[in-house]
Amino acid sequence: MENIKNYHMSSEEFRKQGKQMIDWIADYYENVEKYPVLSQVKPGEITEQLPLNAPEVSESMDQIMTDVNAIIMPGITHWQSPNFFAFFPSNSSGPSVLGDLLSSGLGVQGMIWATSPACTELETRVLDWLAGMLQLPEQFKSTSTGGAVIQDTASSAALSAILAAREKKTNYQVNESGCSGNLVAYISSQTHSSLEKAIKIAGIGKNNLRLIGVDEKLAMRVDLLESAIENDLQNGLIPFFVCATVGSTSTNAIDPLIEIGNICRKYDLWMHIDAAMSGTAAICPEYRHFLDGIELADSFSFNPHKWMFTNFDCNCFFVADRSVLIKTLSILPEYLKNQATESGAVIDYRDWHIQLGRRFRSLKLWFVIRHYGVSGLRYHISEHVRIAQEFAEWVRTSADFDLVAPAPLNLVCFAHKNGNDFNRKLLETINAEGTMYFTHTVVNGNYVLRMCIGQTNTKEEHVRQAWETIQETAKKLES
Amino acid sequence: MENIKNYHMSSEEFRKQGKQMIDWIADYYENVEKYPVLSQVKPGEITEQLPLNAPEVSESMDQIMTDVNAIIMPGITHWQSPNFFAFFPSNSSGPSVLGDLLSSGLGVQGMIWATSPACTELETRVLDWLAGMLQLPEQFKSTSTGGAVIQDTASSAALSAILAAREKKTNYQVNESGCSGNLVAYISSQTHSSLEKAIKIAGIGKNNLRLIGVDEKLAMRVDLLESAIENDLQNGLIPFFVCATVGSTSTNAIDPLIEIGNICRKYDLWMHIDAAMSGTAAICPEYRHFLDGIELADSFSFNPHKWMFTNFDCNCFFVADRSVLIKTLSILPEYLKNQATESGAVIDYRDWHIQLGRRFRSLKLWFVIRHYGVSGLRYHISEHVRIAQEFAEWVRTSADFDLVAPAPLNLVCFAHKNGNDFNRKLLETINAEGTMYFTHTVVNGNYVLRMCIGQTNTKEEHVRQAWETIQETAKKLES
Repeated sequence: MENIKNYHMSSEEFRKQGKQMIDWIADYYENVEKYPVLSQVKPGEITEQLPLNAPEVSESMDQIMTDVNAIIMPGITHWQSPNFFAFFPSNSSGPSVLGDLLSSGLGVQGMIWATSPACTELETRVLDWLAGMLQLPEQFKSTSTGGAVIQDTASSAALSAILAAREKKTNYQVNESGCSGNLVAYISSQTHSSLEKAIKIAGIGKNNLRLIGVDEKLAMRVDLLESAIENDLQNGLIPFFVCATVGSTSTNAIDPLIEIGNICRKYDLWMHIDAAMSGTAAICPEYRHFLDGIELADSFSFNPHKWMFTNFDCNCFFVADRSVLIKTLSILPEYLKNQATESGAVIDYRDWHIQLGRRFRSLKLWFVIRHYGVSGLRYHISEHVRIAQEFAEWVRTSADFDLVAPAPLNLVCFAHKNGNDFNRKLLETINAEGTMYFTHTVVNGNYVLRMCIGQTNTKEEHVRQAWETIQETAKKLES
Repeated sequence: MENIKNYHMSSEEFRKQGKQMIDWIADYYENVEKYPVLSQVKPGEITEQLPLNAPEVSESMDQIMTDVNAIIMPGITHWQSPNFFAFFPSNSSGPSVLGDLLSSGLGVQGMIWATSPACTELETRVLDWLAGMLQLPEQFKSTSTGGAVIQDTASSAALSAILAAREKKTNYQVNESGCSGNLVAYISSQTHSSLEKAIKIAGIGKNNLRLIGVDEKLAMRVDLLESAIENDLQNGLIPFFVCATVGSTSTNAIDPLIEIGNICRKYDLWMHIDAAMSGTAAICPEYRHFLDGIELADSFSFNPHKWMFTNFDCNCFFVADRSVLIKTLSILPEYLKNQATESGAVIDYRDWHIQLGRRFRSLKLWFVIRHYGVSGLRYHISEHVRIAQEFAEWVRTSADFDLVAPAPLNLVCFAHKNGNDFNRKLLETINAEGTMYFTHTVVNGNYVLRMCIGQTNTKEEHVRQAWETIQETAKKLES
C-alpha cells in the first residue's frame, strides 16, 4: 500500500491564502506612501531576527505572514512607492502582477517550443507587437530576418549582443578556439557598467574596451569613436562592437545613433543600442525620434520592467538577423531533440540567450499591453515626461539649484549651488527622512542629484512635494 | 491643472481579478490531469489566433482570460501534471506560488543591499539554511569564507563558476586582457550541455574543453581525467576547471566526487559540482552520501525549481570562497555607490552573478521551506525516490523491457527489447495520446526512454498507470 502522508498545501488552503495575499498586496499599494521609501534598517538587522536553521516541521501561512509584516517589511525599499525617484524605476501594475501570477501558476518551463508552444508563440507575437509600437524597422520582426526574445535584464541582452558580434566577426571561431586578445569594443564613458562586465565575461578583456569621450551633452563623440577605430586598425587589432545608448543611466544622455550607425556600417562593426529605460518613450510618436538611426543597428534592447508597468524581470532584446544569434548560442544535446525542433518550423528560445530554462514571461507583457492599450501606455509615459519637464523647469528657474545635464525625457540631473559636500548631505538627509528616495551620480567630477520620474503611480503632486522637500531641506541645511 | 486620466487598474479591480486568478489556478491544479500533458498543437497554431498588432485601446481582464482559456491553454505542456515524467521536472507548490506572488507585488529590485536589505539578508539566511539541510561543509556558508546566491538557472551558475575559475587561475588577468587560448576545462561526455555553452561564452572555446570518457555507470573516468590533464600540461596548456555532475541529465549518472576532488586539489583546478536536480535528494540523510566529496569543491549548484516544490526560476549557487566570485564579477559605477556598500558590512548580490538587476526570489524558497518543514520536504523527496525505484523494479522484472543505466534516485532509463525504432515509435505514440509525457536520451548509440519522477503531485498511482500505458502501447505496436 502507498504511504499517504501529504504535506502539500490543499486546494482550499491555497484559495484562502491566495485571496488573502491578493488583499495584502492591494492593501500594500493603498498604503505604500506611509512607509519610509528607503528602508531605514541597519546592516544585519533583518538577519538577526531570522532563525539560524530551517524549521524541522511545517509552519502555518499565518506565522509566515506575521514574519513578513514584522521582519521583512521594515527591510523593504519601496520601489512601488510614487515617491521613489532613485536609479531607474522598476515599475509594476495590476495586470502585470496578475500575468506573472498566471505564469507562476502554470509553472511552464519554455526552453524549447515543444515544452509549451504557447510560451514561445505568444512571446514572438507580443514582441512583434512591441516592434510595431516602437516603429522598429521590419528586420527586427520575426516575420522578417530578425525577431526578439524576452531576457531577464539589459545586462544579459548586452552580453548576448557582444557574443553574437564576436562570433559574426570571427566567423564563429571564438566559440571553437577561444578568444585571441585582438578584438576591440567601443562604448562611451557614460555607457552602463553592464557593458564592461559583459566584455569581461566574454573573454574580450577590459583593456580591449575603449571608453570614448563625450560631448557637452554627455553623448558619445563620433569623431573620437572613428579615430579610436582607425588607431586600433593601424595597430592590427579587430574592432567588432559598438554600444550606443539611448538614455544613459547617469544622466539620460542620448548617443547620436545615425552617425554611430554609419561608422558601424563603414567598418563592419556590430551596433547594439541599449535603451533600457528610455526605449519605452519611443512608443509615443513625439519621442520616437530618439530611436532614429535604429535602422542601422544589429540589436536593440529595452526593459518594460523599468518604465512600462511590467514587473521585474522583463527585458526585450531585438536582433536584425536572428541567424547570427542562434548560431552563436545554439546547443542541441540528444535529450532535447524533438520533432518540432528538427522540422525547423519553430523557434526554440533557449538558443536566444545564456540560460537554458525560461519562464513564461510574455504573459505579463501581454496582460499589460492589452489592459492599458497602446493609447493608455502612451498617455502615462507622456505624463511622466511632462511632469519631469515641469520639475526641470522649476530647477531651471530656481535661484539655488542648477540643471547639470540636458533632461530629454524623465530624468532630471541637478545640483545645489553650494557644491559637492552640500549636495551629498542634502541627499542623505532627505533619504533618511523617508518621504522620498532619490540617488546621485557624478558629472565632470561634481556630485549631482538625480530625479527619475517613472513609477507607475507617480503624479504631479508627488513631484511637486518632492521639490518642496528638496528646497526646504536645503534651506534648513544652510541655516 | 494636472490632467487626471488614469488607465491603471483600480485597487477594487485588482482585488476582484486577483481572487478570480487564484481560483483559476486552484481549478487548474484540480483539473490538470484532464489536459493532454504534451501540448498537441501544431507549429503556428497559437500564433495565427493572435492579432497582428497590439490593441490601441484597453481590453477587459475578462476578454484576456477568455483568450487564455481558448488560445493559450491548448498550447500549454503541463509541467505541473502528475503525469509529467519528461526531462527533469520543474515542480511547483502552493506556498511557492504565494511567495512568488508576494515578490511580484512588492516589486523589489534587489541589485544591492540598500535597494531592499530584506531581499539580500533573507536570501543569505535561507541559503545558509539550505547549506545546513544539505550538510554542506562550513566553507559554503555566509558565516564562513563562502556563501550562496540565488541565480536563475544552473546554466548561469555554471558560467559564474567558470568565470571565477578563469580569473582565479590567471590572477584576474583575463578580465583585464582577455583570453589567450591556453586555458583548458574538463567535463565528461555526459555533462550537461550548458557547460559547453558556458565555455564558449567565456571565450575559452570548445576546442579547449575536454570531454572525458565514462565508465559502465556513465560516470566520469578519473584515470582518463588525469591523463588528459597531464597531456595538456605537457603541451604547455593551463588546466583550470572541472565540472563533476551529481545526477546527469541524460541518465542521472553520478561522477566520483572524491576522486575528482583529489585531482582538482593536486593540480590546483576549480571543482564545480552540478547537481541541478539530484542535489535536492541530499536533504534526506539516506541520500546525503551522493554529495560525499563536496568538501573538496569550490562551487556547487542545485535547483529547488526542479525538485523542491519551488517554482521556476530558483537555482542555488554555493561557493567556498566568495572573494574570488566577487572579485571576478564586481563592478561599481558611481550611480550605484552608497554608504552601506562602502562600509563593507553588507552583501551586494549583483556582484555574485551575470545580471545587475534581481528579483526577490528568496521569498518563495522561504515560504516553501517553512510550509513543508524540512521533514515534509524529506518525506516527499523520499517518496519520489521510492516510487521511481518501484518503477525500476517493474522494468527489471519485465520480459520486454530492460534497464539501461543505474537508477540511483528518481530517474529510470529503460528500453524495449525491440530496438531503437520501436522505442522511438513507442515514445511518440504515447506522448501523442496525452495521458503522460516522457522523453528520451541516447546511451551508447541506443535510443533510450526516460521516466523522471519528481512532479509535486506525482503519486504511486500515476507511475503505475504510466507503466501500464507503456506496456499496453508496446503490445499494440507489436501486434
